[in-house]
Amino acid sequence: MRTVRLIVEYDGTDFSGWQIQANLGPDRTVQGALQKAVCEMTQSPDVKVRGASRTDAGVHARGQVAAFDTENHRIPLYGFVRGLSNYLPESIVVRNAEEVPLGWDPRRTSRGKRYRYTYWNDRQGSALDRHRAWVVRSPLDLERMNEGAQVLVGTHNFEAFRSAGCTAKHAIRTLYEVKVERGEYRRVHLVVIGNAFVRNMVRIIAGNLAEVGTGKRSIEALRALLLSEDRNQGAQTAPPDGLCLEEVIYDDRLPERPKDDRDLEGQA
Amino acid sequence: MRTVRLIVEYDGTDFSGWQIQANLGPDRTVQGALQKAVCEMTQSPDVKVRGASRTDAGVHARGQVAAFDTENHRIPLYGFVRGLSNYLPESIVVRNAEEVPLGWDPRRTSRGKRYRYTYWNDRQGSALDRHRAWVVRSPLDLERMNEGAQVLVGTHNFEAFRSAGCTAKHAIRTLYEVKVERGEYRRVHLVVIGNAFVRNMVRIIAGNLAEVGTGKRSIEALRALLLSEDRNQGAQTAPPDGLCLEEVIYDDRLPERPKDDRDLEGQA
Repeated sequence: MRTVRLIVEYDGTDFSGWQIQANLGPDRTVQGALQKAVCEMTQSPDVKVRGASRTDAGVHARGQVAAFDTENHRIPLYGFVRGLSNYLPESIVVRNAEEVPLGWDPRRTSRGKRYRYTYWNDRQGSALDRHRAWVVRSPLDLERMNEGAQVLVGTHNFEAFRSAGCTAKHAIRTLYEVKVERGEYRRVHLVVIGNAFVRNMVRIIAGNLAEVGTGKRSIEALRALLLSEDRNQGAQTAPPDGLCLEEVIYDDRLPERPKDDRDLEGQA
Repeated sequence: MRTVRLIVEYDGTDFSGWQIQANLGPDRTVQGALQKAVCEMTQSPDVKVRGASRTDAGVHARGQVAAFDTENHRIPLYGFVRGLSNYLPESIVVRNAEEVPLGWDPRRTSRGKRYRYTYWNDRQGSALDRHRAWVVRSPLDLERMNEGAQVLVGTHNFEAFRSAGCTAKHAIRTLYEVKVERGEYRRVHLVVIGNAFVRNMVRIIAGNLAEVGTGKRSIEALRALLLSEDRNQGAQTAPPDGLCLEEVIYDDRLPERPKDDRDLEGQA
Protein backbone atom coordinates (compact mmCIF):
# COMPACT_ATOMS: atom_id res chain seq x y z
CA MET A 1 0.00 0.00 0.00
CA ARG A 2 1.08 3.58 -0.69
CA THR A 3 -0.57 6.99 -0.45
CA VAL A 4 -0.47 9.38 -3.41
CA ARG A 5 -1.13 13.09 -3.15
CA LEU A 6 -2.42 14.96 -6.20
CA ILE A 7 -2.64 18.67 -7.03
CA VAL A 8 -5.80 19.18 -9.04
CA GLU A 9 -7.08 22.04 -11.19
CA TYR A 10 -10.70 22.22 -12.24
CA ASP A 11 -13.26 24.40 -13.91
CA GLY A 12 -16.13 24.19 -11.43
CA THR A 13 -18.73 25.54 -13.87
CA ASP A 14 -20.14 22.17 -14.81
CA PHE A 15 -19.91 20.45 -11.42
CA SER A 16 -22.16 20.32 -8.37
CA GLY A 17 -19.11 21.04 -6.24
CA TRP A 18 -16.22 18.92 -5.00
CA GLN A 19 -17.95 16.51 -2.66
CA ILE A 20 -19.55 13.24 -3.73
CA GLN A 21 -23.31 13.34 -3.18
CA ALA A 22 -25.32 10.15 -2.84
CA ASN A 23 -28.08 11.38 -5.16
CA LEU A 24 -25.71 12.48 -7.94
CA GLY A 25 -23.79 10.43 -10.50
CA PRO A 26 -19.98 10.31 -10.13
CA ASP A 27 -19.49 12.68 -13.07
CA ARG A 28 -21.49 15.45 -11.40
CA THR A 29 -18.91 16.10 -8.67
CA VAL A 30 -15.16 16.64 -8.95
CA GLN A 31 -14.42 14.14 -6.20
CA GLY A 32 -16.68 11.59 -7.89
CA ALA A 33 -15.07 12.04 -11.30
CA LEU A 34 -11.56 11.89 -9.82
CA GLN A 35 -12.31 8.83 -7.69
CA LYS A 36 -13.82 7.03 -10.66
CA ALA A 37 -10.75 7.88 -12.76
CA VAL A 38 -8.35 6.62 -10.05
CA CYS A 39 -10.35 3.39 -9.66
CA GLU A 40 -10.26 2.83 -13.41
CA MET A 41 -6.57 3.58 -13.78
CA THR A 42 -5.47 1.49 -10.78
CA GLN A 43 -7.99 -1.23 -11.71
CA SER A 44 -9.35 -1.42 -8.17
CA PRO A 45 -13.02 -0.60 -7.70
CA ASP A 46 -13.02 0.76 -4.14
CA VAL A 47 -10.30 3.42 -3.90
CA LYS A 48 -11.47 6.45 -1.91
CA VAL A 49 -10.21 9.91 -2.86
CA ARG A 50 -10.12 12.46 -0.03
CA GLY A 51 -9.78 16.19 -0.62
CA ALA A 52 -8.42 19.19 1.28
CA SER A 53 -11.38 21.45 0.65
CA ARG A 54 -15.05 20.93 -0.16
CA THR A 55 -15.51 23.60 -2.82
CA ASP A 56 -19.12 24.50 -3.65
CA ALA A 57 -20.92 24.14 -6.98
CA GLY A 58 -19.43 26.49 -9.56
CA VAL A 59 -16.24 27.19 -7.55
CA HIS A 60 -12.93 26.60 -9.36
CA ALA A 61 -9.58 25.32 -8.19
CA ARG A 62 -6.01 25.66 -9.43
CA GLY A 63 -4.53 23.97 -6.37
CA GLN A 64 -7.00 21.56 -4.77
CA VAL A 65 -5.15 18.76 -2.98
CA ALA A 66 -6.42 15.18 -2.99
CA ALA A 67 -5.01 11.90 -1.73
CA PHE A 68 -5.75 8.20 -2.07
CA ASP A 69 -4.32 4.90 -0.89
CA THR A 70 -3.57 2.26 -3.49
CA GLU A 71 -2.15 -1.25 -3.63
CA ASN A 72 -0.95 -0.47 -7.14
CA HIS A 73 2.83 -0.02 -7.12
CA ARG A 74 3.35 -0.39 -10.85
CA ILE A 75 2.23 3.07 -11.94
CA PRO A 76 5.05 5.63 -11.50
CA LEU A 77 4.01 8.90 -9.83
CA TYR A 78 4.19 10.97 -12.97
CA GLY A 79 2.13 8.25 -14.62
CA PHE A 80 -0.84 9.47 -12.57
CA VAL A 81 -0.36 13.02 -13.85
CA ARG A 82 -0.26 11.90 -17.47
CA GLY A 83 -2.56 8.90 -17.27
CA LEU A 84 -5.51 10.21 -15.26
CA SER A 85 -6.27 12.67 -18.07
CA ASN A 86 -7.40 9.67 -20.13
CA TYR A 87 -10.15 8.98 -17.58
CA LEU A 88 -11.08 12.59 -16.73
CA PRO A 89 -13.11 15.25 -18.54
CA GLU A 90 -11.10 18.23 -19.89
CA SER A 91 -12.48 20.34 -17.03
CA ILE A 92 -10.31 18.44 -14.50
CA VAL A 93 -6.51 18.31 -14.80
CA VAL A 94 -4.05 16.65 -12.43
CA ARG A 95 -1.04 18.96 -12.14
CA ASN A 96 1.24 16.99 -9.85
CA ALA A 97 1.54 13.66 -7.99
CA GLU A 98 3.84 12.68 -5.15
CA GLU A 99 4.05 9.98 -2.53
CA VAL A 100 3.19 10.97 1.05
CA PRO A 101 3.16 9.02 4.35
CA LEU A 102 0.67 6.16 4.37
CA GLY A 103 -2.87 7.32 5.16
CA TRP A 104 -1.97 11.02 4.86
CA ASP A 105 -5.02 13.31 5.18
CA PRO A 106 -4.97 16.44 2.98
CA ARG A 107 -7.51 18.27 5.14
CA ARG A 108 -6.26 17.63 8.68
CA THR A 109 -2.61 18.26 7.87
CA SER A 110 -3.12 21.53 6.00
CA ARG A 111 -1.90 24.75 7.63
CA GLY A 112 -3.97 27.03 5.52
CA LYS A 113 -5.48 27.87 2.16
CA ARG A 114 -5.14 30.64 -0.35
CA TYR A 115 -8.19 31.73 -2.33
CA ARG A 116 -8.65 34.28 -5.07
CA TYR A 117 -11.99 35.92 -5.71
CA THR A 118 -12.34 37.80 -9.02
CA TYR A 119 -14.69 40.70 -9.67
CA TRP A 120 -15.43 41.98 -13.17
CA ASN A 121 -15.79 45.71 -12.56
CA ASP A 122 -17.59 47.29 -15.47
CA ARG A 123 -21.08 48.40 -16.45
CA GLN A 124 -21.22 45.43 -18.82
CA GLY A 125 -20.36 41.83 -18.00
CA SER A 126 -17.68 39.91 -19.87
CA ALA A 127 -18.18 37.20 -22.48
CA LEU A 128 -14.74 35.66 -21.96
CA ASP A 129 -14.75 35.90 -18.15
CA ARG A 130 -18.42 35.05 -17.65
CA HIS A 131 -17.79 31.88 -15.61
CA ARG A 132 -14.68 33.24 -13.89
CA ALA A 133 -15.79 36.45 -12.22
CA TRP A 134 -18.67 38.28 -10.53
CA VAL A 135 -19.90 41.37 -12.36
CA VAL A 136 -19.93 44.46 -10.11
CA ARG A 137 -21.28 47.36 -12.15
CA SER A 138 -20.45 50.30 -9.87
CA PRO A 139 -16.79 51.40 -9.76
CA LEU A 140 -14.79 49.73 -6.98
CA ASP A 141 -12.47 51.85 -4.87
CA LEU A 142 -9.53 49.50 -4.26
CA GLU A 143 -7.94 51.70 -1.62
CA ARG A 144 -11.12 51.56 0.48
CA MET A 145 -11.40 47.80 -0.09
CA ASN A 146 -7.85 47.26 1.11
CA GLU A 147 -8.57 49.38 4.16
CA GLY A 148 -11.62 47.21 4.82
CA ALA A 149 -9.59 44.06 4.19
CA GLN A 150 -7.28 44.97 7.09
CA VAL A 151 -10.26 44.87 9.48
CA LEU A 152 -10.60 41.17 8.73
CA VAL A 153 -6.93 40.18 9.10
CA GLY A 154 -6.15 38.36 12.35
CA THR A 155 -7.98 35.91 14.60
CA HIS A 156 -11.69 36.68 14.88
CA ASN A 157 -15.02 35.00 15.39
CA PHE A 158 -16.27 35.01 11.77
CA GLU A 159 -19.85 34.14 12.77
CA ALA A 160 -21.12 37.00 10.57
CA PHE A 161 -19.23 35.48 7.61
CA ARG A 162 -20.55 31.91 7.71
CA SER A 163 -23.60 30.68 5.85
CA ALA A 164 -26.58 28.92 7.41
CA GLY A 165 -25.61 25.39 6.38
CA CYS A 166 -22.23 25.45 8.16
CA THR A 167 -21.68 22.56 10.59
CA ALA A 168 -18.41 23.72 12.19
CA LYS A 169 -18.47 23.93 15.99
CA HIS A 170 -17.40 27.56 16.02
CA ALA A 171 -16.32 30.27 13.61
CA ILE A 172 -13.03 31.40 15.14
CA ARG A 173 -10.53 31.53 12.31
CA THR A 174 -7.30 33.33 11.50
CA LEU A 175 -6.77 35.30 8.29
CA TYR A 176 -3.10 35.98 7.56
CA GLU A 177 -3.59 38.10 4.46
CA VAL A 178 -6.54 39.83 2.79
CA LYS A 179 -5.74 42.13 -0.14
CA VAL A 180 -7.34 43.54 -3.25
CA GLU A 181 -5.45 44.24 -6.46
CA ARG A 182 -6.24 45.20 -10.03
CA GLY A 183 -5.91 42.45 -12.68
CA GLU A 184 -6.00 42.46 -16.47
CA TYR A 185 -8.88 44.06 -18.36
CA ARG A 186 -11.67 44.93 -15.89
CA ARG A 187 -10.69 42.32 -13.32
CA VAL A 188 -10.21 43.05 -9.63
CA HIS A 189 -8.78 40.23 -7.50
CA LEU A 190 -9.34 39.62 -3.81
CA VAL A 191 -6.70 37.33 -2.29
CA VAL A 192 -7.45 35.68 1.07
CA ILE A 193 -5.03 33.47 3.02
CA GLY A 194 -6.26 31.87 6.24
CA ASN A 195 -5.71 28.86 8.47
CA ALA A 196 -9.22 27.48 7.80
CA PHE A 197 -12.58 28.73 6.61
CA VAL A 198 -16.23 28.40 7.63
CA ARG A 199 -18.81 27.75 4.95
CA ASN A 200 -18.96 30.41 2.20
CA MET A 201 -16.56 32.60 4.19
CA VAL A 202 -14.56 33.94 1.24
CA ARG A 203 -17.71 34.58 -0.80
CA ILE A 204 -19.33 36.46 2.11
CA ILE A 205 -16.11 38.48 2.55
CA ALA A 206 -16.18 39.18 -1.21
CA GLY A 207 -19.80 40.35 -1.01
CA ASN A 208 -19.11 42.70 1.91
CA LEU A 209 -15.87 44.08 0.48
CA ALA A 210 -17.71 44.83 -2.78
CA GLU A 211 -20.11 46.98 -0.75
CA VAL A 212 -17.13 48.71 0.87
CA GLY A 213 -15.65 49.26 -2.60
CA THR A 214 -18.80 50.81 -4.05
CA GLY A 215 -19.30 52.99 -0.96
CA LYS A 216 -22.47 51.24 0.18
CA ARG A 217 -20.81 50.06 3.40
CA SER A 218 -18.33 52.04 5.48
CA ILE A 219 -15.16 50.59 7.02
CA GLU A 220 -16.76 51.19 10.41
CA ALA A 221 -19.87 49.25 9.36
CA LEU A 222 -17.65 46.38 8.24
CA ARG A 223 -15.93 46.40 11.63
CA ALA A 224 -19.33 46.50 13.36
CA LEU A 225 -20.49 43.57 11.21
CA LEU A 226 -17.51 41.47 12.30
CA LEU A 227 -18.16 42.31 15.96
CA SER A 228 -21.92 41.71 15.61
CA GLU A 229 -21.37 38.01 14.85
CA ASP A 230 -24.66 38.29 12.95
CA ARG A 231 -24.82 37.02 9.37
CA ASN A 232 -28.07 38.90 8.75
CA GLN A 233 -26.31 42.28 8.93
CA GLY A 234 -23.94 41.39 6.08
CA ALA A 235 -24.06 41.65 2.30
CA GLN A 236 -25.16 38.90 -0.04
CA THR A 237 -22.90 35.91 -0.57
CA ALA A 238 -20.95 36.62 -3.77
CA PRO A 239 -21.64 34.07 -6.53
CA PRO A 240 -19.37 31.01 -6.83
CA ASP A 241 -18.06 31.80 -10.36
CA GLY A 242 -15.52 34.32 -9.04
CA LEU A 243 -13.97 31.98 -6.49
CA CYS A 244 -10.86 29.86 -7.05
CA LEU A 245 -8.97 27.73 -4.53
CA GLU A 246 -5.42 28.63 -5.51
CA GLU A 247 -3.35 26.70 -3.00
CA VAL A 248 -3.55 24.48 0.04
CA ILE A 249 -0.61 25.29 2.28
CA TYR A 250 1.31 22.56 4.12
CA ASP A 251 4.79 23.90 4.63
CA ASP A 252 6.21 26.14 7.37
CA ARG A 253 5.26 29.40 5.64
CA LEU A 254 2.32 29.65 8.03
CA PRO A 255 2.10 29.07 11.81
CA GLU A 256 1.08 25.57 12.85
CA ARG A 257 -2.63 24.98 12.96
CA PRO A 258 -3.97 24.86 16.55
CA LYS A 259 -4.84 21.33 17.75
CA ASP A 260 -8.46 22.14 18.63
CA ASP A 261 -8.89 23.37 15.08
CA ARG A 262 -8.49 19.90 13.59
CA ASP A 263 -12.17 19.40 13.05
CA LEU A 264 -12.69 22.66 11.21
CA GLU A 265 -14.65 22.75 8.01
CA GLY A 266 -12.71 22.78 4.78
CA GLN A 267 -15.26 24.92 3.01
CA ALA A 268 -15.29 28.46 1.73
CA MET B 1 -30.47 57.24 -41.01
CA ARG B 2 -27.48 57.00 -38.69
CA THR B 3 -24.47 54.69 -38.37
CA VAL B 4 -23.64 53.08 -35.05
CA ARG B 5 -20.24 51.59 -34.21
CA LEU B 6 -20.03 48.84 -31.58
CA ILE B 7 -17.10 47.37 -29.67
CA VAL B 8 -17.81 43.68 -29.23
CA GLU B 9 -16.31 41.01 -26.99
CA TYR B 10 -16.91 37.34 -27.64
CA ASP B 11 -15.93 33.87 -26.60
CA GLY B 12 -15.29 32.25 -29.97
CA THR B 13 -15.38 28.69 -28.62
CA ASP B 14 -18.94 27.97 -29.67
CA PHE B 15 -18.98 29.86 -33.00
CA SER B 16 -17.96 28.99 -36.54
CA GLY B 17 -16.10 32.30 -36.69
CA TRP B 18 -17.19 35.89 -37.21
CA GLN B 19 -18.48 35.81 -40.75
CA ILE B 20 -22.02 34.87 -41.75
CA GLN B 21 -22.04 31.68 -43.83
CA ALA B 22 -24.92 30.83 -46.12
CA ASN B 23 -25.06 27.21 -44.98
CA LEU B 24 -25.09 28.04 -41.26
CA GLY B 25 -27.87 29.38 -39.05
CA PRO B 26 -27.48 32.95 -37.73
CA ASP B 27 -26.62 31.69 -34.23
CA ARG B 28 -23.58 29.78 -35.49
CA THR B 29 -21.57 32.90 -36.38
CA VAL B 30 -20.87 36.00 -34.31
CA GLN B 31 -21.85 38.34 -37.15
CA GLY B 32 -25.06 36.37 -37.66
CA ALA B 33 -26.01 36.46 -33.99
CA LEU B 34 -25.19 40.17 -33.73
CA GLN B 35 -27.06 41.09 -36.92
CA LYS B 36 -30.10 39.14 -35.77
CA ALA B 37 -29.99 40.92 -32.40
CA VAL B 38 -29.71 44.36 -34.04
CA CYS B 39 -32.62 43.57 -36.38
CA GLU B 40 -34.77 42.46 -33.46
CA MET B 41 -33.91 45.42 -31.28
CA THR B 42 -34.38 48.04 -34.00
CA GLN B 43 -37.44 46.18 -35.33
CA SER B 44 -36.17 46.27 -38.89
CA PRO B 45 -35.56 42.94 -40.61
CA ASP B 46 -32.79 43.86 -43.03
CA VAL B 47 -30.06 45.66 -41.10
CA LYS B 48 -26.58 44.55 -42.17
CA VAL B 49 -23.79 44.43 -39.59
CA ARG B 50 -20.26 44.84 -40.96
CA GLY B 51 -17.14 43.95 -38.98
CA ALA B 52 -13.52 45.06 -38.87
CA SER B 53 -12.04 41.58 -38.84
CA ARG B 54 -13.17 38.13 -39.95
CA THR B 55 -11.98 36.07 -37.01
CA ASP B 56 -11.87 32.30 -37.59
CA ALA B 57 -13.82 29.59 -35.76
CA GLY B 58 -12.71 29.38 -32.13
CA VAL B 59 -10.92 32.76 -32.15
CA HIS B 60 -11.94 35.23 -29.42
CA ALA B 61 -12.28 38.99 -29.37
CA ARG B 62 -12.20 41.64 -26.67
CA GLY B 63 -12.24 44.50 -29.14
CA GLN B 64 -13.91 43.51 -32.40
CA VAL B 65 -15.47 46.56 -34.07
CA ALA B 66 -18.79 46.37 -35.90
CA ALA B 67 -21.05 48.96 -37.52
CA PHE B 68 -24.57 49.15 -38.88
CA ASP B 69 -26.88 51.74 -40.42
CA THR B 70 -30.30 52.17 -38.91
CA GLU B 71 -33.40 54.30 -39.43
CA ASN B 72 -34.11 53.92 -35.72
CA HIS B 73 -33.37 57.20 -33.90
CA ARG B 74 -35.30 56.40 -30.73
CA ILE B 75 -32.76 54.10 -29.09
CA PRO B 76 -30.04 56.09 -27.29
CA LEU B 77 -26.47 54.91 -27.96
CA TYR B 78 -25.99 53.38 -24.54
CA GLY B 79 -29.31 51.65 -25.07
CA PHE B 80 -27.59 49.42 -27.62
CA VAL B 81 -24.93 48.45 -25.08
CA ARG B 82 -27.51 47.52 -22.46
CA GLY B 83 -30.30 46.34 -24.72
CA LEU B 84 -28.53 44.08 -27.20
CA SER B 85 -27.62 41.73 -24.34
CA ASN B 86 -31.31 40.78 -24.20
CA TYR B 87 -31.06 39.43 -27.74
CA LEU B 88 -27.55 37.95 -27.57
CA PRO B 89 -26.14 34.77 -26.00
CA GLU B 90 -23.88 35.28 -22.96
CA SER B 91 -20.86 34.53 -25.15
CA ILE B 92 -21.26 37.88 -26.97
CA VAL B 93 -21.17 41.21 -25.11
CA VAL B 94 -21.40 44.70 -26.58
CA ARG B 95 -18.94 46.88 -24.66
CA ASN B 96 -19.48 50.28 -26.26
CA ALA B 97 -21.62 52.09 -28.84
CA GLU B 98 -21.05 55.42 -30.52
CA GLU B 99 -22.29 57.28 -33.55
CA VAL B 100 -19.93 57.54 -36.53
CA PRO B 101 -20.23 59.21 -39.96
CA LEU B 102 -23.01 57.74 -42.10
CA GLY B 103 -21.94 54.56 -43.88
CA TRP B 104 -18.67 54.28 -41.90
CA ASP B 105 -16.77 51.07 -42.67
CA PRO B 106 -14.92 49.50 -39.73
CA ARG B 107 -12.55 47.52 -41.96
CA ARG B 108 -11.48 50.06 -44.54
CA THR B 109 -10.97 52.86 -42.06
CA SER B 110 -8.89 50.88 -39.58
CA ARG B 111 -5.20 51.71 -39.23
CA GLY B 112 -4.26 48.48 -37.60
CA LYS B 113 -5.10 45.71 -35.18
CA ARG B 114 -3.68 44.37 -31.97
CA TYR B 115 -3.85 40.63 -31.28
CA ARG B 116 -2.82 38.56 -28.31
CA TYR B 117 -1.92 34.91 -28.66
CA THR B 118 -1.72 32.92 -25.41
CA TYR B 119 0.37 29.81 -24.86
CA TRP B 120 -0.07 27.54 -21.83
CA ASN B 121 3.49 26.45 -21.17
CA ASP B 122 3.46 23.36 -18.98
CA ARG B 123 3.73 19.57 -19.30
CA GLN B 124 0.02 19.41 -18.48
CA GLY B 125 -2.78 21.41 -20.07
CA SER B 126 -5.07 23.66 -18.05
CA ALA B 127 -8.68 23.00 -17.10
CA LEU B 128 -9.52 26.67 -16.57
CA ASP B 129 -7.63 27.95 -19.63
CA ARG B 130 -8.51 25.09 -21.95
CA HIS B 131 -10.39 27.22 -24.50
CA ARG B 132 -8.14 30.27 -24.06
CA ALA B 133 -4.63 29.02 -24.77
CA TRP B 134 -2.51 26.57 -26.76
CA VAL B 135 -0.66 24.00 -24.69
CA VAL B 136 3.08 23.97 -25.44
CA ARG B 137 4.66 21.25 -23.31
CA SER B 138 8.37 22.03 -23.77
CA PRO B 139 9.73 25.06 -21.88
CA LEU B 140 9.62 28.30 -23.88
CA ASP B 141 12.66 30.56 -23.84
CA LEU B 142 11.09 34.04 -23.89
CA GLU B 143 14.35 35.81 -24.59
CA ARG B 144 14.85 33.77 -27.75
CA MET B 145 11.22 34.31 -28.76
CA ASN B 146 11.58 38.06 -28.39
CA GLU B 147 14.74 37.95 -30.45
CA GLY B 148 12.81 36.05 -33.12
CA ALA B 149 9.90 38.47 -32.83
CA GLN B 150 12.20 41.34 -33.89
CA VAL B 151 12.89 39.55 -37.19
CA LEU B 152 9.21 39.98 -38.05
CA VAL B 153 8.82 43.65 -37.11
CA GLY B 154 8.68 46.00 -40.10
CA THR B 155 7.30 45.80 -43.62
CA HIS B 156 7.77 42.39 -45.21
CA ASN B 157 6.20 40.05 -47.69
CA PHE B 158 4.53 37.62 -45.27
CA GLU B 159 3.86 35.01 -47.95
CA ALA B 160 5.34 32.31 -45.67
CA PHE B 161 2.87 33.36 -42.96
CA ARG B 162 -0.39 33.15 -44.89
CA SER B 163 -2.59 30.09 -45.15
CA ALA B 164 -3.73 28.44 -48.36
CA GLY B 165 -7.28 29.87 -48.36
CA CYS B 166 -6.14 33.51 -48.33
CA THR B 167 -7.62 35.64 -51.11
CA ALA B 168 -5.59 38.83 -50.59
CA LYS B 169 -3.74 40.10 -53.67
CA HIS B 170 -0.38 40.11 -51.93
CA ALA B 171 1.09 39.49 -48.49
CA ILE B 172 3.05 42.69 -47.91
CA ARG B 173 2.16 43.87 -44.42
CA THR B 174 3.70 45.99 -41.70
CA LEU B 175 4.12 44.79 -38.12
CA TYR B 176 4.72 47.63 -35.67
CA GLU B 177 5.22 45.51 -32.57
CA VAL B 178 5.78 41.82 -31.85
CA LYS B 179 6.64 40.87 -28.28
CA VAL B 180 6.38 37.94 -25.91
CA GLU B 181 5.79 38.28 -22.17
CA ARG B 182 5.00 36.04 -19.24
CA GLY B 183 1.42 36.10 -17.91
CA GLU B 184 -0.25 34.66 -14.82
CA TYR B 185 0.08 30.97 -13.95
CA ARG B 186 1.71 29.14 -16.89
CA ARG B 187 0.58 31.63 -19.52
CA VAL B 188 2.90 33.20 -22.08
CA HIS B 189 1.44 36.00 -24.22
CA LEU B 190 2.46 37.00 -27.72
CA VAL B 191 1.32 40.51 -28.65
CA VAL B 192 1.24 41.49 -32.33
CA ILE B 193 0.33 44.94 -33.68
CA GLY B 194 0.20 45.43 -37.43
CA ASN B 195 -1.48 47.49 -40.13
CA ALA B 196 -3.32 44.48 -41.59
CA PHE B 197 -3.02 40.71 -41.65
CA VAL B 198 -3.20 37.92 -44.19
CA ARG B 199 -5.19 34.82 -43.35
CA ASN B 200 -4.01 32.99 -40.20
CA MET B 201 -0.97 35.27 -40.00
CA VAL B 202 -0.89 35.63 -36.22
CA ARG B 203 -1.48 31.92 -35.69
CA ILE B 204 1.32 31.03 -38.11
CA ILE B 205 3.62 33.53 -36.34
CA ALA B 206 2.58 31.92 -33.01
CA GLY B 207 3.40 28.45 -34.36
CA ASN B 208 6.82 29.50 -35.62
CA LEU B 209 7.74 31.51 -32.53
CA ALA B 210 6.82 28.49 -30.38
CA GLU B 211 9.41 26.50 -32.32
CA VAL B 212 11.92 29.29 -31.74
CA GLY B 213 11.05 29.22 -28.04
CA THR B 214 11.53 25.48 -27.67
CA GLY B 215 14.77 25.55 -29.64
CA LYS B 216 13.43 23.59 -32.59
CA ARG B 217 13.92 26.55 -34.95
CA SER B 218 16.83 28.98 -34.87
CA ILE B 219 16.49 32.75 -35.27
CA GLU B 220 18.37 32.39 -38.55
CA ALA B 221 15.88 29.73 -39.74
CA LEU B 222 13.03 32.10 -38.88
CA ARG B 223 14.67 34.85 -40.91
CA ALA B 224 15.22 32.40 -43.78
CA LEU B 225 11.57 31.37 -43.59
CA LEU B 226 10.43 34.98 -43.92
CA LEU B 227 12.72 35.50 -46.92
CA SER B 228 11.70 32.15 -48.49
CA GLU B 229 8.08 33.36 -48.93
CA ASP B 230 7.24 29.66 -48.72
CA ARG B 231 4.51 28.56 -46.30
CA ASN B 232 5.65 24.94 -46.55
CA GLN B 233 8.89 25.68 -44.71
CA GLY B 234 7.07 27.01 -41.65
CA ALA B 235 5.64 25.48 -38.49
CA GLN B 236 2.05 24.38 -38.01
CA THR B 237 -0.66 27.01 -37.67
CA ALA B 238 -1.25 27.42 -33.94
CA PRO B 239 -4.81 26.48 -32.87
CA PRO B 240 -7.47 29.21 -32.72
CA ASP B 241 -8.18 28.91 -28.97
CA GLY B 242 -5.13 30.98 -28.03
CA LEU B 243 -5.96 33.91 -30.31
CA CYS B 244 -7.83 37.04 -29.24
CA LEU B 245 -8.47 40.21 -31.25
CA GLU B 246 -7.77 42.78 -28.56
CA GLU B 247 -8.21 46.06 -30.42
CA VAL B 248 -8.89 47.57 -33.81
CA ILE B 249 -6.93 50.79 -34.06
CA TYR B 250 -8.39 53.90 -35.72
CA ASP B 251 -6.66 56.83 -34.12
CA ASP B 252 -3.33 58.48 -34.93
CA ARG B 253 -1.25 56.16 -32.75
CA LEU B 254 -0.26 54.34 -35.94
CA PRO B 255 0.85 55.66 -39.33
CA GLU B 256 -1.91 56.04 -41.88
CA ARG B 257 -2.74 52.91 -43.81
CA PRO B 258 -1.37 53.04 -47.38
CA LYS B 259 -4.05 53.61 -50.02
CA ASP B 260 -3.28 50.48 -52.06
CA ASP B 261 -3.79 48.49 -48.89
CA ARG B 262 -7.51 49.24 -48.77
CA ASP B 263 -8.52 45.88 -50.12
CA LEU B 264 -6.47 43.88 -47.65
CA GLU B 265 -7.95 40.94 -45.85
CA GLY B 266 -9.14 41.49 -42.34
CA GLN B 267 -8.22 38.01 -41.23
CA ALA B 268 -5.62 36.60 -38.91
